Amino acid sequence: MKRIKVCMFDVYGTLFDVYSLQELCESFFPGKGGDIVRLWRQKQLEYSFLRHMMQQYETFHAITEAALRYACESMGEELRREQEQQLMGQYLHLSLHPDALELLARCEGKVMAVFSNGSPDMLLPLLQHAGITGLFQHHISVDALKMYKPDPRVYEFARSTAGVDKDEILFFSSNTWDISGAGHFGFRTVWVNRNGGKMDRLGVQPEYEVASLREAAAFL
Amino acid sequence: MKRIKVCMFDVYGTLFDVYSLQELCESFFPGKGGDIVRLWRQKQLEYSFLRHMMQQYETFHAITEAALRYACESMGEELRREQEQQLMGQYLHLSLHPDALELLARCEGKVMAVFSNGSPDMLLPLLQHAGITGLFQHHISVDALKMYKPDPRVYEFARSTAGVDKDEILFFSSNTWDISGAGHFGFRTVWVNRNGGKMDRLGVQPEYEVASLREAAAFL
Repeated sequence: MKRIKVCMFDVYGTLFDVYSLQELCESFFPGKGGDIVRLWRQKQLEYSFLRHMMQQYETFHAITEAALRYACESMGEELRREQEQQLMGQYLHLSLHPDALELLARCEGKVMAVFSNGSPDMLLPLLQHAGITGLFQHHISVDALKMYKPDPRVYEFARSTAGVDKDEILFFSSNTWDISGAGHFGFRTVWVNRNGGKMDRLGVQPEYEVASLREAAAFL
Repeated sequence: MKRIKVCMFDVYGTLFDVYSLQELCESFFPGKGGDIVRLWRQKQLEYSFLRHMMQQYETFHAITEAALRYACESMGEELRREQEQQLMGQYLHLSLHPDALELLARCEGKVMAVFSNGSPDMLLPLLQHAGITGLFQHHISVDALKMYKPDPRVYEFARSTAGVDKDEILFFSSNTWDISGAGHFGFRTVWVNRNGGKMDRLGVQPEYEVASLREAAAFL
């Protein structure tokens, strides 16, 4: 088996906690913050898959905003403009998962990349605010292709950007559909399963499964 | 505006009630039947989108089975082989929505088609058991293309099978993602919103929205 040359990380859910928006959301919509944040995330992903399939690409920023509006409307809440601006602004200040921070601190000297559905206008400020931009040699967004994961063409784009063979990439994601897409394409994969979920039945298994990125240090 | 020449119906959710599986599911998994059926349906759709995106097509039958297994596993239930066979068998005997039956009875003489993600091995027995096969001139399954809705190529396939222009087709669906895909492609659309849901924010609105197919008779 070839040596791992690049550690590549998914961003939303894997390095950053998308549910760290819950507190702000709860302050706007008391008693519904958790439900709205979960529906927001679910629709954000669904809209990325569907817009891709419909050949109607919009940036992850636009999709995230549409999903937020849908989530509030669907939960019977009026979303005021300043609330929307604050919630969207908070997406640039998500909390890093503590185990992600620990792992990244131990990775100095490795070739590392982030590879995200996030458009650069969301992705780059997020990394900047967390102070981790410089840890990564490559900041790869699907936006360059106007396509979304898990289309194999975007994994190929990430591979060619990293400039190595597909099986020289160790790809970390907490998202089962992302692990499935990366695995079908040929990346080696680590599923970060923090909540004891079940792997989706999409025809491929992760090479490794960890409950925390702390455990992942062993693979580097 | 052109005259409607073909009335085209989505099948699962639109004509047939996918939640009519709940009773059998509840008898196997007391207290969890509703949750399992909802998760089963959600994963069935998600797997169709994801397998399409990953260029890893499998039939709707295979996807439906995988989604059922995931749903039971995820809910902490063991699915025995005979339970799986019964639940999958029940998918060929879903209940027709009463309003669908009423509308179809009034449509005699119109050119009608079904257009479904279902593979023929699921779709045709379902129509047969409900005794409605002969009402439709066209029984169109995406399986011929090994692609899923809402890819525009499958709507084009349905259009060419029907042999009319896209804006001569009135397409009925209860699924918002299907209405979005059909609308972007250029079909005229009727969203069957039986449960007072909100339309997804995917860049297109249905031409008509009805709470029941009974109301739809006016458009024929």
